[in-house]
This record gives sequence, structure tokens and C-alpha cells, in this order.
Amino acid sequence: MTNLPQTMKAVLQTGDGYSGTATGPAIADASDYLESATIPVPVPGKGQVLVRLRVASVNPSDLHFIKGEYGQPRIKGTPAGFEGCGDVVACGDGADALMGQRVAFVAGGPGASGAWAEYALTDASMCIPLRPDVSDEDGSAQIVNPLTAMAMIDIAEKAGGAVVISAATSQLGKLMISLAKDKGIPSIAMVRRSDAVAPLKALGADEVLVTTDTDVVEQFAAVSRTLKPIVFLDAVSDQLSEQIFVHMPNGARWVSYGKLVPDLPKLTQMGQLIFMSKRIEGFWLTRWMMTTPREDQARVVGEVQARFADGRWKTDIAARLPLNDVVSGLADALKKTDGKVIITP
Amino acid sequence: MTNLPQTMKAVLQTGDGYSGTATGPAIADASDYLESATIPVPVPGKGQVLVRLRVASVNPSDLHFIKGEYGQPRIKGTPAGFEGCGDVVACGDGADALMGQRVAFVAGGPGASGAWAEYALTDASMCIPLRPDVSDEDGSAQIVNPLTAMAMIDIAEKAGGAVVISAATSQLGKLMISLAKDKGIPSIAMVRRSDAVAPLKALGADEVLVTTDTDVVEQFAAVSRTLKPIVFLDAVSDQLSEQIFVHMPNGARWVSYGKLVPDLPKLTQMGQLIFMSKRIEGFWLTRWMMTTPREDQARVVGEVQARFADGRWKTDIAARLPLNDVVSGLADALKKTDGKVIITP
Repeated sequence: MTNLPQTMKAVLQTGDGYSGTATGPAIADASDYLESATIPVPVPGKGQVLVRLRVASVNPSDLHFIKGEYGQPRIKGTPAGFEGCGDVVACGDGADALMGQRVAFVAGGPGASGAWAEYALTDASMCIPLRPDVSDEDGSAQIVNPLTAMAMIDIAEKAGGAVVISAATSQLGKLMISLAKDKGIPSIAMVRRSDAVAPLKALGADEVLVTTDTDVVEQFAAVSRTLKPIVFLDAVSDQLSEQIFVHMPNGARWVSYGKLVPDLPKLTQMGQLIFMSKRIEGFWLTRWMMTTPREDQARVVGEVQARFADGRWKTDIAARLPLNDVVSGLADALKKTDGKVIITP
Repeated sequence: MTNLPQTMKAVLQTGDGYSGTATGPAIADASDYLESATIPVPVPGKGQVLVRLRVASVNPSDLHFIKGEYGQPRIKGTPAGFEGCGDVVACGDGADALMGQRVAFVAGGPGASGAWAEYALTDASMCIPLRPDVSDEDGSAQIVNPLTAMAMIDIAEKAGGAVVISAATSQLGKLMISLAKDKGIPSIAMVRRSDAVAPLKALGADEVLVTTDTDVVEQFAAVSRTLKPIVFLDAVSDQLSEQIFVHMPNGARWVSYGKLVPDLPKLTQMGQLIFMSKRIEGFWLTRWMMTTPREDQARVVGEVQARFADGRWKTDIAARLPLNDVVSGLADALKKTDGKVIITP
């Protein structure tokens, strides 16, 4: 085992359990949810590995989580941060195979210690050894968004029709648009600002609609009649989402994977569920990872790395924050919407 | 061919197409949607049969339909009524096998002529020859409710958990409760009036909750923790339905098959779709009939008739209306909620 320090810098959650609110991933001040501290370096248990952080990334799920609005409870006083990239420097029983490897990892499960720290602790099964031709920054965002993109576009591919993608300027949205294009799946991107139209069309979107246009629903209805999208991959889940769904054809599926705004959508056309075989469901990568056979996951992981290695995919970086500056600087850094915020030790 | 008259009495739809509203199946005055008339007896085309009516039944779907709020458009001037029982008195090409038989039928598809008339016209595939030990009245309600009950309880059986049934005092609700009991599926019935609790428990419901109780959601939450219902078969689809769904466990499915009240439910917990694998969908018997293999349908039809023949199921009759009295008397007859309204020539 490498000679490890006793203590480390970390960004800790100050909340505990669930908040009971559903206010979306926006934060006004990270100090409402986080504090900097120096804590003991965690020790890997059976099947776990300790990872010395190279780069962590900030996903919307991290923000939902620190606010107590995610699918698992907070544990007060433990480091925040689900995803990162680093070097395995210690292994518990049964996890030796990863020793010394540079890995992408998710530190999310019970007993894990989060990625926004000098050292993170997670199950060996949550680590993916990185090819040398994938950079640390790309490696820090190698799992949550890319696997979600692959798994969700797979839903659209199996459904056999065009796909609607909301919040399409997000890193995940862009991954999905390029992936849909490569697979020959027509895509309709929904964005908030008209200056996103040209870049997303260049990336491969067949149609890009601006949600702030007063007639966006009519525009969508017209596009829907032509492209007949069957799957709606939706990060927003508001009333406009419901209207998009209402104007999709028979058999349409509204697949929610996020709730960017707190507005609670009304179901204005229950009859479409009955008469048009529509349905509303969700997607959660954690469930996908728990229910997808290892060999299928390995195939997807391999394709993800190949896409980053050969440049088809890349991680746009909006801001870089050292660990020391996360609490004071995260809210401001997140205001830049054109890429990911990453965290370095 | 039997010697047939040239004309017949019929109750005709006065509306055309869709109304664009979604006000539920209640009607204040049938003359808003229907008129009595004498029209030519229809002539069966290829694959069709002409049925001389014995008894027709009134389903909620008939009311949705005449109001222009169903899954298919009205055709002004054609007879209303989806379901009935009668004798096949004329056959088009390829439908001779049914000649002279007493059948239960649905007259719903394109080119059909409805059941609220002395003669109905439908596809041979929409007719089920009746066993002699099934009465005309039971025969008039042999398809829509019983097949829906069988198909929907089958959903619960395959899901492998308890079932929630709303509007449980309806004929369909009662069929489903007794069927669930016979199959060993625990059922939670939702009713509007406390005087329905004892009869539904006697019929086999494990729990009966009264939706007008102010704490019905808390009551349901407690029952849900014990019985862990996975499927919610819902005829109401209002905000209380949404709250029921919210208090169901991981993997729960909200299966809407009706919209008894116009209130538009808000989705208050989108995150449950994501993190708890819940989903919202619909059930429509027409789709079930179009997508279920003939041999499976035949097996279900056989079981339905056996249940009516041996008395496990029966059709409770709330009111009997001659064709001449439908327009004037239907709204009043429907106020009796303890059974079906049936129509006779």
C-alpha cells in the first residue's frame, strides 16, 4: 500500500436524509448544503477501493443530492460528489486487481465516501479502468453522463423512432444528440435560447426548438407530425414537457430523468394513456447499472471510452474549482451553462 | 336469410367527431347527444353480421363516446351503443358460420352500426357465440367489462403483487374484486360511500377505503405499507388517484382505464418515476383485443362465460329501458349506481 496521509481535505454535506422538497438542481449558495473540512482518509473495506482524486465532475444529480432531493438519503458529515477520476491507492479484500490503476469512478452507494475530496472510497464494481488516451478531465465525466446517454438512446433505438431531447444544451443532451445522429435516429432538441440552435444542428439534431418561443407547442406539433418521435428523454419534467408529450404520436413514451424546475405538471390528456398507448416512466442510471448484465455494461463502457479517445465525444469544461474553493465558488461556477464544472484537489 | 324489415328503430348520435372536451361520463340530458329515429336496417358487408337485438347494455365508454370524448370519433346519424346480445340474422361473405347463433357482440369499429337499435351491424370477429346457460341480460354485458376485468387482473397477476381498484362499486370493479380473490391477489378497493365497504369486503376485497374520508391518503399509505400493491387499476384518474400512486411502493404502475371526473391530476413526485421505477400507463380493451393472440382471447372468453354460467359472476341490473325511452330516460336511469342500465328493443 502506498504511504497515505492520515487526513484529507474534503467538501462535506451539512444536511442529512431527505429534505422533502423538490426545488430542482439550482443552488443560490453552496454553503447552504456544504462545508470544507479536514477529515480522516477513509479505509477501504471488503470489495472497496480508495481512489486518490485527479479530477471530480459536478452533475445535476450531485446538486439534487446535496439538497436532499435525490433517490438516496444524505449522510451528514460525509464528502459530497458522485463522480470522478483518480488512482487506486488502496484496496480492500477482493479488490486488489485495481491497485495502481487510473480509473473513472462513481462513489454513490452505501458505505462510499464522495468524490469531492482528496481521496474517495467506493466499491471496486463502481470503477472503470481508463484507457491511456482518455484525459483526466474526460475521465472525470466518463460514467454518469456517457452511460446515461448510451442507455437512454438505446431506449429510443429499441423503440424504433425519432427521439425528443430536452435541456439539450447540457453535456448529456449533446452526447445524446451526437449519439442519435451516429445511430441514424432523428432527434428533436429542445433548448431555452435561440443561440443554441445552430450549434446543436451542427452536432446532428434534426430539429431544434426554442422553449421560450410563444408558439413552441405548435412548432413541436408540426415537427412531431413529420418525425413521429416515440421517446421523449426529458430532464425538465414541467408543464411544457407534458404538452410535448401530448403532441407526440401513438405509443409515445415520456421518459423523465430529471426535474430541472419545481413546477408540477398536470396531466391534461389522461385519455391518451388509454387510447393512444402512451406511457410515462423514468430513467435512473443506478437502476440501469443494477439491472443490466455485466457483459452488456462492459460493451457500453468500451464504446464510451472509444468515443472519448477518438474525439467523437469530449467534455466541455465551463469552470475549474480547486477543492478549497468549492463551497465559496460552486454557485457562481454553475451559472456558466456551456459545460461542466470540474473539481481538482 | 330471414325475412327482414326495411327499417328499424334506433337511437342515433347527434354529435360528430370529437368534442375536444374531457368532462367524464356523466350526462345531464341524453337529448344533448342522442335522438330517436327510424332508419334503414343496415346490410352486412364482407365479414360482417347483422344482429337482431335482444338486450344492449350501457357502459361508461358509451357515454364517453356519445359525448365525443372517447378514443374514436363519432359519426353523426349512426346508432350509439357498443355492446349487446342478440341473434345473427344476416351475414356478409365469409361470416356464414355465425348465422342463426345467439351472440354477445361489440359494435364499435369502422363500418359498424351501434347496439342501441333493433338491429346492429358488426364484424364477425366482434361476436362471441353464447352458451345456452348464459342469460340474455348477462350476455349483453359479456365482453366489455368481463374481458377488461380478466385482462386487467392479469396485469396484476403478472406483476405479482396486490392490486388497488378505484370506483370499486362499478360492475367492472366488482368483477375485478371477485376475480382477484379467486386468483389469490390481495385487493384494496376505493369507494365513495361507506355503505359500500361491507358488500365489497363480502365480495373478497382485503381492504375497502372510503375516498371521502379526510384522511383517506393516510389510510391508504398504512394499507400500502402492509399489502405493497404494485398495480393500480384506476377508473377515476384524478388528484386522489395521483396521491394513491405516490403512496404505492417501488415499481408501482398506475394503469388508467377511465376518467370519471374532469379534474386534471398534477404529478407531485416525478422523482418517483426516476428513483422508484414507477410508471403511468393506460388500458384499453380495444387495444387488448387487437394485440392479444386469438387463442389467448378464446381462453379468456371461455372463462368469462363459465363464470357467468355457474353464477360466480352476474350482471346487476339497475334499470331496464326500451329503445323508445332511451333519449328521455337514460340520464335518470344512470343515477342508480348499483348496477347496469340495459336497453331492450
